[in-house]
Amino acid sequence: MPRKPSPDVTMADVARVAGVSIATVSNALNSAGRMSQSTRDKVRRVARELGYLPARAHTRTLGLAVTTDHPASWGFAEIPYFSQAIQSATAVAHEHGYGLVVQPTAVGLERWAVLAVDGMLLIDSPKGDRVRADLLMRGVPVVHIGRPVSAEPDDIWVDNDVEGAVRGVLDHLSQAGAQRVALLGGDTTDYYIQACMTTYRQWCAERGEPVLLELMRRKNPAPAVARLLSRDDPPDAIFGPYDRCGHAVLSAARGHGLRIPEDLLVACASESSAYETTTPPVTTLSLDPVGATRIATELLIQLVEGGTPAVSGGVVHHTRLLARKSTLRVAADHLSTA
Amino acid sequence: MPRKPSPDVTMADVARVAGVSIATVSNALNSAGRMSQSTRDKVRRVARELGYLPARAHTRTLGLAVTTDHPASWGFAEIPYFSQAIQSATAVAHEHGYGLVVQPTAVGLERWAVLAVDGMLLIDSPKGDRVRADLLMRGVPVVHIGRPVSAEPDDIWVDNDVEGAVRGVLDHLSQAGAQRVALLGGDTTDYYIQACMTTYRQWCAERGEPVLLELMRRKNPAPAVARLLSRDDPPDAIFGPYDRCGHAVLSAARGHGLRIPEDLLVACASESSAYETTTPPVTTLSLDPVGATRIATELLIQLVEGGTPAVSGGVVHHTRLLARKSTLRVAADHLSTA
Repeated sequence: MPRKPSPDVTMADVARVAGVSIATVSNALNSAGRMSQSTRDKVRRVARELGYLPARAHTRTLGLAVTTDHPASWGFAEIPYFSQAIQSATAVAHEHGYGLVVQPTAVGLERWAVLAVDGMLLIDSPKGDRVRADLLMRGVPVVHIGRPVSAEPDDIWVDNDVEGAVRGVLDHLSQAGAQRVALLGGDTTDYYIQACMTTYRQWCAERGEPVLLELMRRKNPAPAVARLLSRDDPPDAIFGPYDRCGHAVLSAARGHGLRIPEDLLVACASESSAYETTTPPVTTLSLDPVGATRIATELLIQLVEGGTPAVSGGVVHHTRLLARKSTLRVAADHLSTA
Repeated sequence: MPRKPSPDVTMADVARVAGVSIATVSNALNSAGRMSQSTRDKVRRVARELGYLPARAHTRTLGLAVTTDHPASWGFAEIPYFSQAIQSATAVAHEHGYGLVVQPTAVGLERWAVLAVDGMLLIDSPKGDRVRADLLMRGVPVVHIGRPVSAEPDDIWVDNDVEGAVRGVLDHLSQAGAQRVALLGGDTTDYYIQACMTTYRQWCAERGEPVLLELMRRKNPAPAVARLLSRDDPPDAIFGPYDRCGHAVLSAARGHGLRIPEDLLVACASESSAYETTTPPVTTLSLDPVGATRIATELLIQLVEGGTPAVSGGVVHHTRLLARKSTLRVAADHLSTA
């Protein structure tokens, strides 16, 4: 069992137990030097078991990473949810005199080791997140935005009530008259997309309605939308939990000669004001990344400065359903905008 | 005269000429260690004169700093011009596999030395910019967004045609019927605000019109607006070159019982869509920070990777005047939206 990191354990202790030199310990922990992978792994295991806490220079710089297990690189900084989170974290960091560094995805552990940040915000940490494991091993304070998949009692995270929000959208579609509600799912292990799929399946089971689920790639939901609309029993409503889903459904519906909202309802999770002016405007679920990131960044700074953060465990942040024309098939008083 | 930085000059060369140890050279250049300020200055001067180029670890991280000489800290990351520039730089950096760190203003040189970025974007570099001098001395590649005030032939910068853009706004106000156009100026030395004031004075002189100029604080233009409106000879149009000017003029006009656009025209430089929905909507000059920052970041990456950048010297980037109700006092065909 790993011990809680302690400043009393020295690099010499780790070297003695692992049976290597202090230089090798240093290199192994900093992803530097030349050594076999098994030696590197052994040193890291011993360091973790002893609770070794490396001395770190205070750089007054915080890091932000999106470590979800998407294949290779994807331009998350241009997606409104993430660009708003980055802007919010930067603003809060600056208020407290900290800088903020945002790395691209698909960055190796070496890069994180070189960075020497005082603390780290991790967004959508997936199963077996190696960046998370490495940061915790090195004693770098971490606050999560979106629950880490394998959350431990010491973890601090800020997240939405994903289950409640998804139920809100599905109920809204049902109240608008939909009887065959489909979900665009994803093939990543992060909590968000998994909770969306689990909640959807439960909701369908409770109501005895069919599960119409297709897995999409975040960058391009179009093929998954096409599969849904080409079914023998196509859906009469689609909810997509990523930003680009709304545009993809609008476009595919046009191709299939379907009118929105008359033939097909559509809603998606998005922070983009672009959906106010599409034809028709699209109902969106807002996760308020600005507010959630503000809370997470303030908690991280409290941790970094050695204070006791105002919370332990999770903070649940509100969502908002913005009902627009794309889901308004029935009289307005049937709609809830929780 | 400083020589062009060269990898052939060693730290030992600097130590010999400066008459100090190599450790002292290292400490002086990295803002570390204890020594008198005069020793530190001497070592840095010698390093610069010899063209010493410190070996740097490649971190694949770029930096972005706003070094304009505003007093202490101001939350630039929440101003649309800068938040859009940060978003654009982050996206372009990520496309090329780089991270991006954004520091708050009022950061000491020590922090920049610790950062070890591969290259740096500097926005609105003022007169005597110490961060700029330090980066150049340490051989860190720099690309400027907004001309550095004391530009040298080797500088690479991306900027708007500030003079042309300001003349466009002033002509627009004049064509809309204004005869007493005022400018909100600033007390910083960066190129942008100085060029705004110089162009305004020239434009007034050419037309024999009065100079109605008040200096504002960027964070709160309200006192300067109040001084303009309280004059015995108040203006009938105001141009504010910062984002918050439009809101400040709308609010002050209400307080003075002035109707916009009937009694007072107002335009400001802004990237904020909020001015589409104010009462009335406000005419804005857009400097397109997204496009300008994309060009600057791509040039910086070319420099960092040892290539010859596609340009040397300056790149002039377009502006757009978005004419709205706040300057529409006369028939629409009198308006130009260059």
